[in-house]
Amino acid sequence: MSVRGKVAIIGVGLIPFGELFHKGLESMIQEAFMSCVKSVDKGFDPKDIKAAWFGQWSGGGMIGQGSREGTTLGTVLGLRGIPISRLENGCPTGNDVFRNAVLGVASGAYDVVLALGAEKMRDKPGVESLVAAGGGAGGGILGLHPSWMMGMGGPVLQALYATRQMHELGCTMEDFARVAVKNHHNGVACPYAEYRFEVTVERVLSSPVVCWPLHLLDCCPQTDGAACAIVCRADLAKKYTDKPVYVLGSATGVDYKDMWDKENFIEMPATKFAAKMAMDMAGIKPEDVDLAEVHDCFTNTELLNIEDIGFCKKGEAHKLLKEGYWNREDGHKPINPSGGLKAHGHPIAATGLGQICENFWQLREQIEPVRQVKLKKGIALSHNVGGNGFGVSSVNIIGREP
Amino acid sequence: MSVRGKVAIIGVGLIPFGELFHKGLESMIQEAFMSCVKSVDKGFDPKDIKAAWFGQWSGGGMIGQGSREGTTLGTVLGLRGIPISRLENGCPTGNDVFRNAVLGVASGAYDVVLALGAEKMRDKPGVESLVAAGGGAGGGILGLHPSWMMGMGGPVLQALYATRQMHELGCTMEDFARVAVKNHHNGVACPYAEYRFEVTVERVLSSPVVCWPLHLLDCCPQTDGAACAIVCRADLAKKYTDKPVYVLGSATGVDYKDMWDKENFIEMPATKFAAKMAMDMAGIKPEDVDLAEVHDCFTNTELLNIEDIGFCKKGEAHKLLKEGYWNREDGHKPINPSGGLKAHGHPIAATGLGQICENFWQLREQIEPVRQVKLKKGIALSHNVGGNGFGVSSVNIIGREP
Repeated sequence: MSVRGKVAIIGVGLIPFGELFHKGLESMIQEAFMSCVKSVDKGFDPKDIKAAWFGQWSGGGMIGQGSREGTTLGTVLGLRGIPISRLENGCPTGNDVFRNAVLGVASGAYDVVLALGAEKMRDKPGVESLVAAGGGAGGGILGLHPSWMMGMGGPVLQALYATRQMHELGCTMEDFARVAVKNHHNGVACPYAEYRFEVTVERVLSSPVVCWPLHLLDCCPQTDGAACAIVCRADLAKKYTDKPVYVLGSATGVDYKDMWDKENFIEMPATKFAAKMAMDMAGIKPEDVDLAEVHDCFTNTELLNIEDIGFCKKGEAHKLLKEGYWNREDGHKPINPSGGLKAHGHPIAATGLGQICENFWQLREQIEPVRQVKLKKGIALSHNVGGNGFGVSSVNIIGREP
Repeated sequence: MSVRGKVAIIGVGLIPFGELFHKGLESMIQEAFMSCVKSVDKGFDPKDIKAAWFGQWSGGGMIGQGSREGTTLGTVLGLRGIPISRLENGCPTGNDVFRNAVLGVASGAYDVVLALGAEKMRDKPGVESLVAAGGGAGGGILGLHPSWMMGMGGPVLQALYATRQMHELGCTMEDFARVAVKNHHNGVACPYAEYRFEVTVERVLSSPVVCWPLHLLDCCPQTDGAACAIVCRADLAKKYTDKPVYVLGSATGVDYKDMWDKENFIEMPATKFAAKMAMDMAGIKPEDVDLAEVHDCFTNTELLNIEDIGFCKKGEAHKLLKEGYWNREDGHKPINPSGGLKAHGHPIAATGLGQICENFWQLREQIEPVRQVKLKKGIALSHNVGGNGFGVSSVNIIGREP
């Protein structure tokens, strides 16, 4: 069974990601939503929205305000009377919110729905960057897994993988740094990216070591941001736009959440589960994907994820990277043309929806010319992996044809 | 558009609610799930579960462990590789988790799915009962709405309604107390209820005033618990049981979340939105419902909710209560035969799913004979309202015929 062909995206919107001390969660949500509404070619009345899913990872813990519920979204957007659920699923929250919205439309219960994710991650006094603090401070305050409170934050856990990638797959720190070089280069041209500057391998390797072998510039930032998409029944899409983009596959997969259950540290099974389910639903193979936004919370993670999604064999991603295979310009299989989490930023619940915005624009060829990827089959993929033990992954595949 | 006729419940399970200091979240989840699996008449292999939705309101904040994600559920139940989302929607989390599971099946993406909610609310040192502490302690630690941190917890906010119900609708404190009398009486016979003792009007009115006019025995407890349901495609249900129960209507509605946006304090618009949508989907009217589990976090709230759902006109619920109209034995329209939140307990994300367990058993006439409600049309309704500003409500309507 599949949702393929049933659901289309008619508009997307996001705000420039960054350290947005001057914007509240509410204003970020409103700005992303208004941008989304305006993006619908033939005009859009928010009254057409019959249900919504609201992604929020921190649940307000990072800004000391508000258990979230659907009412937060409804109130700030004036969406009264409709169903709105708040959803949290670790770093894949954004892509999983999109999946739930797709299911809502495919069910026949709602013709037009909103998927929106927003996160304030920089305001909380005392919560330092997960990058710099190794997750320790965040872990304590946010009630994360006990391993985080023992200092086992993101960089530390990722270093377990990075060292095994070096030992088993022959990756080097230079290879990891090349991911940062590629993604920062892509981010420079993206008006929504947080970090719009180039880096070099030398600069990455001379930045402070956060947890060996990962340097500061191997780590993505902690970001404020909001992003959303309006999806509707495929057969109604042309009412709103002549260029809808269709949902081909949408999946989430969970692995066990505890590090001691992992079979190895060179793959993340959650990604394998989600990618296979999404591709089976879409009826495509990895080679059919023109471009992909792939979770690069750390540079080594992008390489690992590229392999787990199936874009190349295990142990080959870093070699292909060196050959320019994943570059935007070479056009073999551009990975993270938006800049990725690394340069575009990582406001957790907004991240996946930001990826979908990028893919939507790329497939409609309405992006800045310098950023436009050469399309072949007109299919794009977005991917996140995260949560405790990197135990959850979400993948959405969208295309120009239904 | 509707999901009616597409989805059936084939099994349910819950654990006895209470102060379960001796049980962890994980063991509560496992116990409820095993009970659910065993309840499927013709046998059930958990491998048939193709997706799950996990309800968790506190997100671990109350037990200092774990941002939740779907992985928590997957790991403790051995459900690896499937999609699992964590959902939070205030007090209606349980009924809204069920709605999302129903949408998942109706979408065609998954044949059989699990809806499970669990909450540990009694363990956290320093978090006193929301009842006793007026939400203040819980509010600060859990990051609730600022009004909670100003002492505007559940009882205080409900007292705003109770006083208006007295002033505008002619309710008395005796009327409120009669809700407690009815629900405690029902709870005595329910093996899963937290409070299995009778109370009298006199005892309620002589219990300490928490926030006038609400006494301690007008307030529901804060509870540990877990509950779940397995739902599947209606056309596959007979493979699992000869007596499936069908989903007729499923809806959530949001109102504005801030108290200053309320038009009055004698109704909760979220309930009106959700109840109307669910009944429209089901194609029924309030008089078609045989029995209902109605959110009674406080005694006055049950009266208000009965009216908002449409079971009687505004201002009449307390009069009909006095006449015994809502009693289990009289059989006009039994409200909360399980004991309700008041006596059965209120483990937030589990509460709505516990209501669905009760309704499932009542409709299949497999409940303790003393508790069995007389069925007419074979239709039962479950309802929650809550969240900031009581701004979100979920309603599910299930029936013996599709």
